[in-house]
Amino acid sequence: MKLTLLLLLAAAACAQGPIRGFSQEGAVRERALESKLLAVPDARRIEAHMKAMASEPHHAGSPASRKVAEYALRQLRAAGLEAKIETFEALLPYPQSRLLTMGKFSARLAEPNFAEDPDSTDRNQLPTYNAYSADGDVTAPLVYVNYGVPEDYEYLKKQGIDVRGKIVLARYGQSWRGVKPKVAAEHGAIGCLIYSDPKDDGYFRGDVYPAGAYRCEYGVQRGSVMDMSIHVGDPLSPGFASEPGGARRLTRGEAKTLMAIPVLPISYGDAKPLLEALAGPLAPENWRGALPIPYKLGPGATPVRLKLTHDWGTRPVHNVIATIPGSVAPDEWVIYGNHHDAWVNGANDPVSGAAAVLETARAFGELYKTGWRPRRTLVFALWDAEEFGLIGSTEWVEKHLPELKQKAVAYFNSDSNGKGPLGLGASPALNLFLEQIARDSKDPATGESILPALLKVQRPFEPGPLGSGSDYVGFVHHAGIAGVNFGFSGSTGGVYHSIYDSFAWYKRFSDGEFIYGRGLAQVAALSLARMSEAPIVPFEFTRAAATIRRYWREVDKLAADKNVGLPNVAAALDELDAAARQFEARYATAGRGTREVYLTERALLLPDGLPGRPWYRNAISAPGQYTGYGAKTIAGVRESLELGQRQQAVAQARAFSAAIANYAAAIHAAAAKLQP
Amino acid sequence: MKLTLLLLLAAAACAQGPIRGFSQEGAVRERALESKLLAVPDARRIEAHMKAMASEPHHAGSPASRKVAEYALRQLRAAGLEAKIETFEALLPYPQSRLLTMGKFSARLAEPNFAEDPDSTDRNQLPTYNAYSADGDVTAPLVYVNYGVPEDYEYLKKQGIDVRGKIVLARYGQSWRGVKPKVAAEHGAIGCLIYSDPKDDGYFRGDVYPAGAYRCEYGVQRGSVMDMSIHVGDPLSPGFASEPGGARRLTRGEAKTLMAIPVLPISYGDAKPLLEALAGPLAPENWRGALPIPYKLGPGATPVRLKLTHDWGTRPVHNVIATIPGSVAPDEWVIYGNHHDAWVNGANDPVSGAAAVLETARAFGELYKTGWRPRRTLVFALWDAEEFGLIGSTEWVEKHLPELKQKAVAYFNSDSNGKGPLGLGASPALNLFLEQIARDSKDPATGESILPALLKVQRPFEPGPLGSGSDYVGFVHHAGIAGVNFGFSGSTGGVYHSIYDSFAWYKRFSDGEFIYGRGLAQVAALSLARMSEAPIVPFEFTRAAATIRRYWREVDKLAADKNVGLPNVAAALDELDAAARQFEARYATAGRGTREVYLTERALLLPDGLPGRPWYRNAISAPGQYTGYGAKTIAGVRESLELGQRQQAVAQARAFSAAIANYAAAIHAAAAKLQP
Repeated sequence: MKLTLLLLLAAAACAQGPIRGFSQEGAVRERALESKLLAVPDARRIEAHMKAMASEPHHAGSPASRKVAEYALRQLRAAGLEAKIETFEALLPYPQSRLLTMGKFSARLAEPNFAEDPDSTDRNQLPTYNAYSADGDVTAPLVYVNYGVPEDYEYLKKQGIDVRGKIVLARYGQSWRGVKPKVAAEHGAIGCLIYSDPKDDGYFRGDVYPAGAYRCEYGVQRGSVMDMSIHVGDPLSPGFASEPGGARRLTRGEAKTLMAIPVLPISYGDAKPLLEALAGPLAPENWRGALPIPYKLGPGATPVRLKLTHDWGTRPVHNVIATIPGSVAPDEWVIYGNHHDAWVNGANDPVSGAAAVLETARAFGELYKTGWRPRRTLVFALWDAEEFGLIGSTEWVEKHLPELKQKAVAYFNSDSNGKGPLGLGASPALNLFLEQIARDSKDPATGESILPALLKVQRPFEPGPLGSGSDYVGFVHHAGIAGVNFGFSGSTGGVYHSIYDSFAWYKRFSDGEFIYGRGLAQVAALSLARMSEAPIVPFEFTRAAATIRRYWREVDKLAADKNVGLPNVAAALDELDAAARQFEARYATAGRGTREVYLTERALLLPDGLPGRPWYRNAISAPGQYTGYGAKTIAGVRESLELGQRQQAVAQARAFSAAIANYAAAIHAAAAKLQP
Repeated sequence: MKLTLLLLLAAAACAQGPIRGFSQEGAVRERALESKLLAVPDARRIEAHMKAMASEPHHAGSPASRKVAEYALRQLRAAGLEAKIETFEALLPYPQSRLLTMGKFSARLAEPNFAEDPDSTDRNQLPTYNAYSADGDVTAPLVYVNYGVPEDYEYLKKQGIDVRGKIVLARYGQSWRGVKPKVAAEHGAIGCLIYSDPKDDGYFRGDVYPAGAYRCEYGVQRGSVMDMSIHVGDPLSPGFASEPGGARRLTRGEAKTLMAIPVLPISYGDAKPLLEALAGPLAPENWRGALPIPYKLGPGATPVRLKLTHDWGTRPVHNVIATIPGSVAPDEWVIYGNHHDAWVNGANDPVSGAAAVLETARAFGELYKTGWRPRRTLVFALWDAEEFGLIGSTEWVEKHLPELKQKAVAYFNSDSNGKGPLGLGASPALNLFLEQIARDSKDPATGESILPALLKVQRPFEPGPLGSGSDYVGFVHHAGIAGVNFGFSGSTGGVYHSIYDSFAWYKRFSDGEFIYGRGLAQVAALSLARMSEAPIVPFEFTRAAATIRRYWREVDKLAADKNVGLPNVAAALDELDAAARQFEARYATAGRGTREVYLTERALLLPDGLPGRPWYRNAISAPGQYTGYGAKTIAGVRESLELGQRQQAVAQARAFSAAIANYAAAIHAAAAKLQP
């Protein structure tokens, strides 16, 4: 390259801002690479992938899921990657019989077919059910419990309404669905129904499918009710991989994440007669949904019968894994994954994201075909059985744990993608990295930088903490790998986990031009290119330290509110600040780093894990035990305080302090190894 | 009375607190009188009155309304009072034809009969309509305008939705019904429908009638849509009485309070198909009611036809007036009224309050029969045609205006009464008086003083300002007579102005034991006894001044927010404080007062009235032009500011300042006449 051109490019690059991990000159070369990568993803190919992968119901364990895995395999190989299917086995129960009656009323428990959407008439749809519900045949009066979170039961108690021995009816929303039957069982309920209220995703929101995007009268949200607060992955292989034919398994009796009581999701069409039959006091105003009835707490005069059996089958789980080996540091892995299994056709969830992975992989594949080699190894994954409990990704993490602990630089994850703003959650060490990704990524609709809109919502820029809900959990919360979850967050209307999450629905009501799909492939390509090519892994710790300090302040305030004296963690937090500053001082003149930079993240693992759930080991965040998907930061301390466990809170604060001290030490070590 | 007894009673009276207007010894005698009065009202008699007066539909102008007036006349005479019926004539239009269609849909426009409530099957029910709606036959697309207040039209405008030439569909609530078609017409709409959304008083609130108290699918709220912001009373006799056979009348063309466009109230059963047919954008979340549909703004594809004719009849209005002449000051009148006309049977509205008037009158009548005489003259009134526009009371005020200006000490008003807390609105000079009434009145359910509960809601104790909605308007806003509006405010469920406001409904869902009816009769008896017997009329001005100053601060802040420089009224407010203090200083040693004490209230009349509506003359409060019933304090200034009329706001502030200066001068004059 001629000097003038290089200077011109350098000036241009400077105007675009620095890139973490790269020298000024390195950034120029990086931007040249990025512009080639970003040119590859193609909206028409996204559309074609979606059509193909969402063409039939392909729930985990089904032959159709295997077919989708094979489609992805072919695509990745065609793109020039080394790709394989890595199969596990897991407990994936399908429903055998479902009955819900009240006197003469028998619930429909089926979603109608619509001529307007041929996919709604597909064969082999999984009936509406909640995976990992207990089998059972219970008959009892019904009580309405609103969203079924602990405060709802406190309210019922104040009204003198006891759910012991009752069946509860909860509505979807606010908490993750698996929390609802768990809390119900903790309060003595013997069965749980979960329905989609039209206020939350039905006609109150707009026209219902097929006229509009929202949930129709008999549309149902399927979904897992595994107790994911304990651990994720196959319930019978906690902490180890469930390989096909492998001997090591728990019995169902030993498993800790199966739901204790029968639980069934139902439509508002089926819920209405049940709610209408309730007696008792009127529910408070914020408990009332949009059904044309007075919402009462119950119980009603006529008992409800809920009878469920499941086949408790062990079924194959097919992950698709593709790689482009690194040239400089082949044993440092930058990973991007998205699940491919769906509850039914799953055009939005997950195919919209899975299609983007295929296009991101193709972008690198195209360059790879020309002889280009990444510095680090790129790994692309399409996970199976996410819907049942993040099973494909978790088993893979558990199987490869020792290797991942050494090699995994960072894990990027996406899932459903839609027409909306970019959503971001991440490990704090990636705050700066992601701000630069947002700065250099374009809004698919306007072509403008994504960053200003994100700064309008929150300044300084700070991605949210990672909770649960997609395949990053094993990487982040169990293995201590820095993680990112991203995607354009469009409305999923009212088709989530129903037979109507189809290509036809997605085309009409979401990213019908597939430009957000292309946009996600580009954001991912940019992220992977920088994470894989940066001479120094682009972690940054001063902003991580600020985020962690903020989390601590919240927890500390909670402790003060509850009159709990926590041990002082100021020394550890100060040491973290000092380490971060020292790292930056060395970084300013450094040209190369070592794997110690990304290994810092491992220091944040709690040796004993979180109280009562040792599988979760991340000191910074975890999925809440009573929120489900929602992240709790410094969960060991926070949840101990919330549950009134004072001594445990103190012990957890010590463990947190130790983790932060370890983190600071690891950052010092990484700084020491930075080289000019 | 022996001295010991007197001393004992004095000690007891002292423990019960002083009574405004009475010496310590006078208070002892007063309490003895009060205990006799309070023993008279009887729940069983309240029940009997209600059964009798609510036994058939008795809308104003009907023979049944005359029958109810005659019933009250007999009761008052039997109680020993001088009583008569004073008849006026007014324009009381009844509906002739009503049609509402959209394509093949034809609205039912009728309330179903229920076997559970024989009154719902009564003959001679007035059909569902809005009195003073224009006649018309309009066909146009429909637009949903939420509550139909000005801000709703601003929102529609921002969405690009123009109501010119359209029919609008508004829901009941937030603003008084007559404001809705008025605002609609101001925005160019050619017709208006008003429906009762189930969110506001239907199944969202509880079980619907006859299972529960709330509005059933085809229940309709009748009501007047006279433009009461201009003036109340007969539209054809503004400011003067419409006596039978009287020659002086406006033509309908000259009347200013008739609605310009056709308007019809409908049920949610009839509104649902109309709303369902609307296209256009989804209405914002706080516009959506509880019908099981997506609420859209419209317009819809199919035009709506609204065809209405009315008979425009002039009909008799029968007020019942009863008196007990005063012994010391027969030309000072203490008045208590409640209307007797109803839209249909009206057990709650107004019979629950009218029955209390009869029992209050009987309490005084019983004493009167024993030879007791009140100091001042007591006047009891049962007004007719309140529902059409406060017509009976207003015509009476207009007829007797010169006499009332001299003689009226205060006007007490009640209306619907129910099972709930005591509600109070009043002229500020009665703040202290009413605090003592509340202190010495017992909650009908608990037997405890009413005051502590009121102080929990607002401290210091301060009754709200008087707006509109019942018969005090002519007295307070036109004649400048100190007013009180009181009643126990139970929920009216969803039967307001429907055929279901029946004795059966009231017995089941409101004050079924009639103890709140007795309670109202007792509160009224206590109030009248003190207002009539106090040697010094029990007005108090320091707290009045504080209330008025607070109102001014609100208006002043509004002016500052709008960058309007108002003339300084501080001097007038300071002078009011000084006058109030001087009055108190003299009061401390005074034993008697003159009529100048109550005539102070006249000084608050604005000589030119409010902008655009000279009939309304009260400087302190008025019904809002765009709220209807809701009071606007210092309305001349406040509404000028709200409407962006800066110069008018300045002029109104001057007028307000002058009124306050007059008020201060009148208080000085009253103070000067206080005697030992």
